Amino acid sequence: MINEYFLEKAESLKPHLFHTEITEKGDGKPLKEGESVIFDFGNHYVGYPRIRFSSVGHHPDAPLLFTVQFAEIESEFNQNPAEYHGWISKSWIQEETVHLDAIPGVYRFERRYAFRYIKITIVSASNNYTPVIESVSADTVTSADDSAAEEKNFNEADRKLDAVSLRTLRNCMQDVFEDGPKRDRRLWLGDLRLEALANYQTYRNYDLVKRCLYLFAGTTLEEGRLANNVFTAPEAECDFQTMFDYTLFFINTLWDYYCASRDEETLRELEPVCMKQYELLRECFDEQHLLDVKKAGNIFIDWNFELDKQAPGQAVYLYGLKDLVKIEEALGKNCEELKEEIRLKTEAAEKLYDAEKGFFISGENGQISWASQIWMILAGVTDKDTAEDILNRLPSEENAVKMNSPYAYHHYIQALIDTGMKEEAYRAMHAYWGGMIAQGADTFWELYNPEDPYVSPYGGLIVHSFCHAWSCTPAYFLRKYYY
Amino acid sequence: MINEYFLEKAESLKPHLFHTEITEKGDGKPLKEGESVIFDFGNHYVGYPRIRFSSVGHHPDAPLLFTVQFAEIESEFNQNPAEYHGWISKSWIQEETVHLDAIPGVYRFERRYAFRYIKITIVSASNNYTPVIESVSADTVTSADDSAAEEKNFNEADRKLDAVSLRTLRNCMQDVFEDGPKRDRRLWLGDLRLEALANYQTYRNYDLVKRCLYLFAGTTLEEGRLANNVFTAPEAECDFQTMFDYTLFFINTLWDYYCASRDEETLRELEPVCMKQYELLRECFDEQHLLDVKKAGNIFIDWNFELDKQAPGQAVYLYGLKDLVKIEEALGKNCEELKEEIRLKTEAAEKLYDAEKGFFISGENGQISWASQIWMILAGVTDKDTAEDILNRLPSEENAVKMNSPYAYHHYIQALIDTGMKEEAYRAMHAYWGGMIAQGADTFWELYNPEDPYVSPYGGLIVHSFCHAWSCTPAYFLRKYYY
Repeated sequence: MINEYFLEKAESLKPHLFHTEITEKGDGKPLKEGESVIFDFGNHYVGYPRIRFSSVGHHPDAPLLFTVQFAEIESEFNQNPAEYHGWISKSWIQEETVHLDAIPGVYRFERRYAFRYIKITIVSASNNYTPVIESVSADTVTSADDSAAEEKNFNEADRKLDAVSLRTLRNCMQDVFEDGPKRDRRLWLGDLRLEALANYQTYRNYDLVKRCLYLFAGTTLEEGRLANNVFTAPEAECDFQTMFDYTLFFINTLWDYYCASRDEETLRELEPVCMKQYELLRECFDEQHLLDVKKAGNIFIDWNFELDKQAPGQAVYLYGLKDLVKIEEALGKNCEELKEEIRLKTEAAEKLYDAEKGFFISGENGQISWASQIWMILAGVTDKDTAEDILNRLPSEENAVKMNSPYAYHHYIQALIDTGMKEEAYRAMHAYWGGMIAQGADTFWELYNPEDPYVSPYGGLIVHSFCHAWSCTPAYFLRKYYY
Repeated sequence: MINEYFLEKAESLKPHLFHTEITEKGDGKPLKEGESVIFDFGNHYVGYPRIRFSSVGHHPDAPLLFTVQFAEIESEFNQNPAEYHGWISKSWIQEETVHLDAIPGVYRFERRYAFRYIKITIVSASNNYTPVIESVSADTVTSADDSAAEEKNFNEADRKLDAVSLRTLRNCMQDVFEDGPKRDRRLWLGDLRLEALANYQTYRNYDLVKRCLYLFAGTTLEEGRLANNVFTAPEAECDFQTMFDYTLFFINTLWDYYCASRDEETLRELEPVCMKQYELLRECFDEQHLLDVKKAGNIFIDWNFELDKQAPGQAVYLYGLKDLVKIEEALGKNCEELKEEIRLKTEAAEKLYDAEKGFFISGENGQISWASQIWMILAGVTDKDTAEDILNRLPSEENAVKMNSPYAYHHYIQALIDTGMKEEAYRAMHAYWGGMIAQGADTFWELYNPEDPYVSPYGGLIVHSFCHAWSCTPAYFLRKYYY
């Protein structure tokens, strides 16, 4: 369903893009057919590249045919695009083979790429000339105002963690908060929530969050259900898929936005959208007030097919509803029914705590997972002492299903902080995100497993996003809780 | 050497391009990965294509990656570009693999292509959508004014021959007279001369010929020698190679231009360029006044490495000098020395006639070729009776080195006509160019061997030009001599 009023609001909030020109000079070496050269821009960028060619020998008498590959991390070049057969579309691979007809001349890419490295391979010139790359430049873009992020008196390790977080967030901030500027370049609710949190501590672009909220509210599925994500080109349209947890996060994102901006008009206009989600999702529970995962449909929680989603799903529901109460109260509305719903669902959630094992369990097989513990703590189902006990014992619980993504790690860090375990949170954050930095990350990755840094659930890391919104929150934690 | 004054004149004569929009609609069929569809525009065009896509299924959630091949004749699609390893640069192959990020949407090619057929193959979409080609369009261009070519009362066979010739010429008429709009897209002297002749009988764009003459005169090699061809992008610059015959054709082209246009100012301004060529090339003869092929360097005559170039080269020299005399006389200049040079070189040429064999012979091995006979006749070395005798016996002379290109056939037809053998010329023209029409040609080809229509001297017909300037002259012959 399209809500024109909401979409017009979103349109009116289109951000100004800051443009920065970057250039790397060539070494003047003529390149024969089959030869390659890699340009390293020294940091991660998003933009529209162009390549300036000259030549040696005679006047070029045939077009120049060359391949250009764009990589966020250099090891992407070790992957042969032709050998990628994973389930994510190979159209995401940042590789083009193009012609330049007039040399000396400049090839301009009209597509936008995310890169630190640009590799150029000469496919074909002619016998009469040999091309020379004079320079590779790019018009880089972001809607983040670099001057808006406050300088903090960080120690060196924190400064690095913050800088890479900021770079990640900045390069995902475009026309909307994208999940990743390489892939999917799209507005996802789960990513938006975390980007917005980091944004409030750094670039403070409130209008961009507002725009994204109105885009979701303006493009819903049947009955007004919010989709996982929204396409913005060629026109605003929501995706067909829903996820139980992502839907609820709209409520949290709106409340966070209001807390940061105090924009009551937006809170008032979008409150009915939140209530609509509540009305739809409260139907997904059984008679014992436990989440019926079949009724709930997709629940994301983490990039993990092994993970049982019942307990974390139950917790995310509570997590959303608790912010919905705050919204209702802020608008002076009666929310006794909502509070009763929270009471009933909390009671049911408490029953998922297995006192013998000392952990929350999930699903028919009583699965113990990090996600279940983390979300129950974030939803306030436990008291602080129990939470601390759980979090202390969790790392040594070998059977617990682990976390797979920076997105899941974010919630672990938040759970530690909420439980008062700031030192453990700090160490865990440095161990995990610091591990990416040790691997040379300029921006934080979509996926990172410390035990196997280059594992891919997609069938090839050439389609991974190495600058991914949901990984940008160390800056949020450091600035909100430590400085 | 750059002559700024001449280049400014050339620049001021840049032609207006006529734009015609063409569109073929798709059949609405969704195309899966690996599927192809061919669009047939029904005639040969030169222009900037664009492809409009929609999709079925869900909103496209990944870019569309697709390959587009442009073909002048449909059998080009039977060739696998990856298997072409000939000596002409594969960068001429009209194939692109490109991304379209927003669907529904239009992909616009910024390069110009020459095509009748456009084949689109889907490389990768995603599991959530299947692309549909709504239409393929193009902004087609030519500097020929279609309304300028007079209607003639042709018979049906001649009408077809004329139409295909005109289409060939028209599609080669762009910013300059190109040799071929697919390859090399460049101004060559040998092609220009024939295009200009056809142009005077049809589109009558005198300024385009004038522009091309000034481009050659404005960009010469050391000592003012004219190159084979001139590059016009990114700026006017001549090629490094010369050919003895092509250099001389500048004289003929200027004289033909003057005869058609009566533009005495251009004749006067460019006459010194002609005299300079004469001064340089008269040094290429031995003491017997015979062409020293080593001194002469490259001589083209035909696409044939077997051909001995001495006798035809000697004849082309005379052919050029005879028009130079006309230029000098038109400008009221003394040309006794020039006439003496013609007398001496004609005498030497006559000695190449082997009375016993009844043919002109060429080189140390006394090679008999069609080219030698044709050029000696065109240069007026023989009397008409001898010429007729030679041309009558030539087809049955099995040892005579044959013609390989439409360019060589043009001179054969002209020699027949000059000798008064108009019927033979007419039949030969229909047999040769009509053979291409029988093969389905919309425009005449760069190369055509009736005995082996698809033979390639390049190692693959995928790089052949199937709309080639030097093949466009049937319209000139028909309109000048027959209607």
